[in-house]
Amino acid sequence: MSSNQLDKKSQAWSALFSEPMSELVKRYTASVFFDKRLWKADIAGSLAHAEMLSAQGIIQPKDLADIQRGMAQITADIESGAFEWKLDLEDVHLNIEARLTQLVGDAGKRLHTGRSRNDQVATDVRLWLRDEIDTLLPLLADMQKALVDVADRNVDTILPGFTHMQVAQPVSFAHHLLAYVEMFARDAERLQDVRKRVNRLPLGAAALAGTSYPLDRERVAKTLGFDGVCQNSLDAVSDRDFAMEFSAFASITMVHVSRLAEEIVLWMSQNFGFIDLADRYCTGSSIMPQKRNPDVAELARGKSGRVVGHLMGLITLMKGQPLTYNKDNQEDKEPLFDTVDTVRDTLRIMAEMVGGITVKTEAMERAALKGYATATDLADYLVKKGLPFRDAHEVVAHAVKQAIASGVDLSELPLATLQGFHASITPDVFDVLTLRGSLNARNVLGGTAPAQVRQQIARHRQRLA
Amino acid sequence: MSSNQLDKKSQAWSALFSEPMSELVKRYTASVFFDKRLWKADIAGSLAHAEMLSAQGIIQPKDLADIQRGMAQITADIESGAFEWKLDLEDVHLNIEARLTQLVGDAGKRLHTGRSRNDQVATDVRLWLRDEIDTLLPLLADMQKALVDVADRNVDTILPGFTHMQVAQPVSFAHHLLAYVEMFARDAERLQDVRKRVNRLPLGAAALAGTSYPLDRERVAKTLGFDGVCQNSLDAVSDRDFAMEFSAFASITMVHVSRLAEEIVLWMSQNFGFIDLADRYCTGSSIMPQKRNPDVAELARGKSGRVVGHLMGLITLMKGQPLTYNKDNQEDKEPLFDTVDTVRDTLRIMAEMVGGITVKTEAMERAALKGYATATDLADYLVKKGLPFRDAHEVVAHAVKQAIASGVDLSELPLATLQGFHASITPDVFDVLTLRGSLNARNVLGGTAPAQVRQQIARHRQRLA
Amino acid sequence: MSSNQLDKKSQAWSALFSEPMSELVKRYTASVFFDKRLWKADIAGSLAHAEMLSAQGIIQPKDLADIQRGMAQITADIESGAFEWKLDLEDVHLNIEARLTQLVGDAGKRLHTGRSRNDQVATDVRLWLRDEIDTLLPLLADMQKALVDVADRNVDTILPGFTHMQVAQPVSFAHHLLAYVEMFARDAERLQDVRKRVNRLPLGAAALAGTSYPLDRERVAKTLGFDGVCQNSLDAVSDRDFAMEFSAFASITMVHVSRLAEEIVLWMSQNFGFIDLADRYCTGSSIMPQKRNPDVAELARGKSGRVVGHLMGLITLMKGQPLTYNKDNQEDKEPLFDTVDTVRDTLRIMAEMVGGITVKTEAMERAALKGYATATDLADYLVKKGLPFRDAHEVVAHAVKQAIASGVDLSELPLATLQGFHASITPDVFDVLTLRGSLNARNVLGGTAPAQVRQQIARHRQRLA
Amino acid sequence: MSSNQLDKKSQAWSALFSEPMSELVKRYTASVFFDKRLWKADIAGSLAHAEMLSAQGIIQPKDLADIQRGMAQITADIESGAFEWKLDLEDVHLNIEARLTQLVGDAGKRLHTGRSRNDQVATDVRLWLRDEIDTLLPLLADMQKALVDVADRNVDTILPGFTHMQVAQPVSFAHHLLAYVEMFARDAERLQDVRKRVNRLPLGAAALAGTSYPLDRERVAKTLGFDGVCQNSLDAVSDRDFAMEFSAFASITMVHVSRLAEEIVLWMSQNFGFIDLADRYCTGSSIMPQKRNPDVAELARGKSGRVVGHLMGLITLMKGQPLTYNKDNQEDKEPLFDTVDTVRDTLRIMAEMVGGITVKTEAMERAALKGYATATDLADYLVKKGLPFRDAHEVVAHAVKQAIASGVDLSELPLATLQGFHASITPDVFDVLTLRGSLNARNVLGGTAPAQVRQQIARHRQRLA
Repeated sequence: MSSNQLDKKSQAWSALFSEPMSELVKRYTASVFFDKRLWKADIAGSLAHAEMLSAQGIIQPKDLADIQRGMAQITADIESGAFEWKLDLEDVHLNIEARLTQLVGDAGKRLHTGRSRNDQVATDVRLWLRDEIDTLLPLLADMQKALVDVADRNVDTILPGFTHMQVAQPVSFAHHLLAYVEMFARDAERLQDVRKRVNRLPLGAAALAGTSYPLDRERVAKTLGFDGVCQNSLDAVSDRDFAMEFSAFASITMVHVSRLAEEIVLWMSQNFGFIDLADRYCTGSSIMPQKRNPDVAELARGKSGRVVGHLMGLITLMKGQPLTYNKDNQEDKEPLFDTVDTVRDTLRIMAEMVGGITVKTEAMERAALKGYATATDLADYLVKKGLPFRDAHEVVAHAVKQAIASGVDLSELPLATLQGFHASITPDVFDVLTLRGSLNARNVLGGTAPAQVRQQIARHRQRLA
Repeated sequence: MSSNQLDKKSQAWSALFSEPMSELVKRYTASVFFDKRLWKADIAGSLAHAEMLSAQGIIQPKDLADIQRGMAQITADIESGAFEWKLDLEDVHLNIEARLTQLVGDAGKRLHTGRSRNDQVATDVRLWLRDEIDTLLPLLADMQKALVDVADRNVDTILPGFTHMQVAQPVSFAHHLLAYVEMFARDAERLQDVRKRVNRLPLGAAALAGTSYPLDRERVAKTLGFDGVCQNSLDAVSDRDFAMEFSAFASITMVHVSRLAEEIVLWMSQNFGFIDLADRYCTGSSIMPQKRNPDVAELARGKSGRVVGHLMGLITLMKGQPLTYNKDNQEDKEPLFDTVDTVRDTLRIMAEMVGGITVKTEAMERAALKGYATATDLADYLVKKGLPFRDAHEVVAHAVKQAIASGVDLSELPLATLQGFHASITPDVFDVLTLRGSLNARNVLGGTAPAQVRQQIARHRQRLA
Repeated sequence: MSSNQLDKKSQAWSALFSEPMSELVKRYTASVFFDKRLWKADIAGSLAHAEMLSAQGIIQPKDLADIQRGMAQITADIESGAFEWKLDLEDVHLNIEARLTQLVGDAGKRLHTGRSRNDQVATDVRLWLRDEIDTLLPLLADMQKALVDVADRNVDTILPGFTHMQVAQPVSFAHHLLAYVEMFARDAERLQDVRKRVNRLPLGAAALAGTSYPLDRERVAKTLGFDGVCQNSLDAVSDRDFAMEFSAFASITMVHVSRLAEEIVLWMSQNFGFIDLADRYCTGSSIMPQKRNPDVAELARGKSGRVVGHLMGLITLMKGQPLTYNKDNQEDKEPLFDTVDTVRDTLRIMAEMVGGITVKTEAMERAALKGYATATDLADYLVKKGLPFRDAHEVVAHAVKQAIASGVDLSELPLATLQGFHASITPDVFDVLTLRGSLNARNVLGGTAPAQVRQQIARHRQRLA
Repeated sequence: MSSNQLDKKSQAWSALFSEPMSELVKRYTASVFFDKRLWKADIAGSLAHAEMLSAQGIIQPKDLADIQRGMAQITADIESGAFEWKLDLEDVHLNIEARLTQLVGDAGKRLHTGRSRNDQVATDVRLWLRDEIDTLLPLLADMQKALVDVADRNVDTILPGFTHMQVAQPVSFAHHLLAYVEMFARDAERLQDVRKRVNRLPLGAAALAGTSYPLDRERVAKTLGFDGVCQNSLDAVSDRDFAMEFSAFASITMVHVSRLAEEIVLWMSQNFGFIDLADRYCTGSSIMPQKRNPDVAELARGKSGRVVGHLMGLITLMKGQPLTYNKDNQEDKEPLFDTVDTVRDTLRIMAEMVGGITVKTEAMERAALKGYATATDLADYLVKKGLPFRDAHEVVAHAVKQAIASGVDLSELPLATLQGFHASITPDVFDVLTLRGSLNARNVLGGTAPAQVRQQIARHRQRLA
């Protein structure tokens, strides 16, 4: 029998079909333009499958050797760009298998024994995603390291800490950057958790129900580095949790990026002037000659939308799908690919850019002097003198009101004036009204006192080593 | 002065910049790979702008002629594939302008007078989208026509109407298809409404504040077929409502597609067997030789996720952005492009496929006989005999219970048995207990009686002519 | 017959059911706790239906009178709080109908003739939403008026116009506010468009297929103020486009709110200090005595998430639903109710707050002097002297670089220095380098020149009158 | 000093404020109507904080005793319904603290020492969510147990396994149900992972920067059962990852529910008739007397939209927020509360309902006989006879085509006819063409063979014990 189903895709699917697929349908349903990206995983999966088929005596050693030889050729062709991807062959799987059969004959036709494209594609995507996760984890670490490095140089740099974008209390700029380290550290934790559920082998589920060949699924899992096998064949071919869960991780990570990007854009704005970015991270304007725009940060912020959109797309895709495999699932790939690309490129560029910011120490400190940032310190001072906190809070509100009216800082009010608000105030009050006094006072675990911040930096250094 | 900003993009943005953009940044921020798709709109916009600049005496007629000549050359080059798109030139605008200047010298440098890329890109996208809308509107009409055509052949075909996926009442299959015509008709209405707000000209807003050149914006609007001009320059460059609103239209349309697709998949399933699809719309299985799968419908259903995802992405993108243009906005294009492509391809293929379904009349009618679909008719019959509706409802519940117990349809219960439930029942009851009797009875505006359905078909034919 | 289906809800649905609904199911499926909000629409719909039934001779005039009397009583009871809503009666419809039957006997049981809860609930929601839209439209106008009022007082107030949050060009603060007027004006346009598609009558579709009673649907539509009737009964009961479309409108409106809120929060921050808010719109801190936070703006920004979430929820709800009515649709109400409430409250409070901002004119103008906001004016000046725009842009970049190095504004560079950049520069250059010179120059339609802004204000005043 | 900030909320925030909050603002910004739900967590957190303050000598033992006494009283009042929640007091925290101060005087005013509402609310929500997670985990187990129980009774029940909703291969109904067990088991895994990141203590971060009091945060963490403390105060008050991550878990779980619900609705439909639901899980129709609708499953499917919407809302909320606490964050609570309620109620009712389904064994098996479900078995048979799989696939396609033409199953084709397709076919072919033969053949790990399914049931039983 010389012809087979694969050669005839441009004619008809099989003898059962009386006419070929319409051209429009072929283009609409084909995935090869995007899923060829999975070729490495597809070949790795096929080789592991063939090796097991041979070990189990389902195919002959000669078949295995033929398949390995053919796949080596295909690998070389794809890498050199010589491989011809055909729309008619629909997807990466059929393109590779058809070429294999062309190269090695019947052994190629035997490769698909005991499997289906349903379990094959699920295996490919998981394998590919697992490897991408293993690329992302170090990038998340790099992002943290870049932040820790800048933090290390700025433990004593004073930034106005904001709540509600109103000056609240002075904080160490290092402390502020370490808040983002916490976020990206949680992202890395989450990604490790996602990896556990990605790294399970669907192969062996065949079309949906398992197969009548005596496959050794555990062996294939081991060959491919999977942590285990999917225990239910129907679930194995229909499950796309891994795509949703990865996208949820990615969305949260991009929310963190969007927050950091928002701050970089603000800090870079003339009204803040807290940092500067190297020219290589800025773009100009086609009309305004003076412009230096923080495009990278803005774009990174904007790209959070793209990733969140993919998460929503994937959830909508899966909602209400009956078991088992439905063609809808083909739509899992493009959002997943784009999500991985976006997160990877964004982490890389943000880490690089953050590493190169110039901190304008004086501007930050000057800004911290606006807004009565040490008012809480005055209240705490009064509490230590015996006032209940709520009463101290009210006393200080009066003092702030007076200072605003006089156009001065709390530390610039005369002692007598301060004592007018509460008799317990003594000259040592001025120690607590300085920015540095305020900073040093917050010497609690997780607080902004430089001593605490240095301990955190040391902890992160060790953790990230 | 021989060099200019555009030539030096690979070196540095302008004299203000001390170093070139990093390679990573260049790739991250470049849009030319996707926005070159806007080239036709970009050139049309530039020509209209240049024509107006000349008419206003801002540039010389010679400049205009040079620009027109250069743009003709560029158009030819792009169409022939000879145009070289450069990543270094960031986007479609700079690629075309740089090439223009190369071709025609100073006239090319004068083209950007009184405009900025901020208003230029907004103009391009609106122009492009307006034209895409004008492609989608006829496709929405085609979709409706395809449904009306099948409906026309199936006015008397009886389908079990479902609520809660439980057999409810018999309906005309035509009536069922016309429900989708209503949906796609609303989509077309919505798209007309969107078009009004897309088709306004931002050009003339320049970077953000307008320009000091005496532009005639109304003239440009007229040349380009816009309905009017954006009345506020800050809004003109920062507004992306048109993208969000179009995506909302597209999402609702795809929800309609997903519902129709869901039904096609179900009807095609062996447990329904209500329709068959031509082989050219089906695919087989790589493992199961008997399979003929309605892939197109499934994929169309799945693609609703993609479009909804883009809507969510665009909204997330715009949320909380301060005025005016921020680089985030560059992220509007890819989702918009993909949304247009998806809706266009999906409408086209669904219309074609729906037009070619084979209706299995007997299977539909057989299914309508299950589930006591005429029970409401019996209740209505009793109401006409004088019972309050609620009491009639209860009487029929008893009758149905009895029929279920006996394993027969209501119409198969003996008259005496029926009379045991209510004395007012007479032999004419059997007229209302048939499927066709039930169908014909619903002769109210919008109802499923064939007479009504024929009127609706006539109305749609006229509307869509 | 004394008992009926409605009384027995706590026992079993009808004679067909052998056991009552489980308590858990009753709570899970009941909607009365939230849909009782529809009571006014439900009664209005019932009265219009009954009036038509009587006019068509389907019920007796006596029945109509009874129903009207009963409904008057129920209206009074609900308004006084005396009406007892029962979980056992599931929803607003059965609660009212059961009480009606209790009050007026058989006439109550006749009310449901020719209708079903499927078309009844669709009618109620549309009626309710139509009325809410008619409340929102004036609020959108109020929002615009509040902005126009503040704009009117600030035509000559100079704000630094930003792109990329970098100072770009000076703009009139009025012009900036009018950008938001454009946005809310588009929202109002969109809402008018949504209203057309909301205001169509489903009643008469009955359960799904229409009814065998000779209803006059046009009459009911007219009584209730609908623009027309739904032309397909299956569509009428299953369509929730109006909910999705309204939510899309609301999401875009809330995106606009989020942008305005973001700017208010920034302007209020000490690093901008552009505006102040009255104390009645601020909150303090439980710990920091000096804090005055713009909570309202922040919360409004945050509430965009809530509304967008509801849009996503509604789309997910409808995705892939086969026709016709499925219980899923009950989930349309809570998101819709909350969306209406959120948009209404937010527009009201934002309009009030915007109306009361204090503009800190000097701070804005001082900020506009940072960032070389008139650089484009210098380039335009050179173009008018004969340079191609691109060359002028480059010349100015050199000048800006020099000014930055010297720590001065462009206007502070000596004439000789400026002439060193280009010989064509003459003393009149200093006219274009002032903020006001720059502002006045942008005298193009939609530009920021005060003359233009005044025209826009006049146009808006007329439009909103 | 008799008055304090809390008493005066209805007048003004503090001495700093010159006017009280507007009524509209008060209602818009108040959260007490929904956050009072956190009261138990709020009191537990306060008691742990007070106990530590006393242990550290920051307050006196007498203060602690007073606070404990006051809180006991408040607890009793809330539980009895006697506690008066005041809108004027904005939120759960101020309501409780104000009442405490009323009850115990200065000790109450001292409670807030070293904390802020920013860290307090973060602590409350995490504490509450941790406890809700501990309620959800057993419900996820119950859901799995319910499925395993039904599976246990249906290992030998044959269901047509579908791909693309086309009959694919026969599967054990138990196997199908166990696919859902896998999904809910992954959900439980995910929830355990989420719990780790929820269960960390923010308290001690104070407003944003830590506090100047010598707090022992580890002690408080231990008292409250937290796994550790948040290591960065800025992150502690601004982080809402736990809400997003929990919502992502919930969305995936609800997608699983929606898939199961979709299948229950289909199986219950007359065209499938695979199962029946007890009357207590069904509702009837107000118009169609014969209806028994699977409302619970439909509603559960619909509620996936609500939960997904909340996820989208939360992400939108957090996108682009600068540090640290912004009022936007108040919007985290309602979606989180509703998500928890929805998942809890849905799991409970679905587990109960699944446990009570009636399986219609014959209908399932009859349906499995349609659609040539054993075609793959014939192909596998031929492979074992030596054909390459691809060739065998093609042979069987011919056989299926013939069987369809003859209107018979493959097993009904005469041996001679089968041999006409391939000479290697012998009488033993009929063993593989039966449903049970097919089922038993898939005896691979994770396959549908009853032997495999029984092993899986045993594994789940042990795991869930």
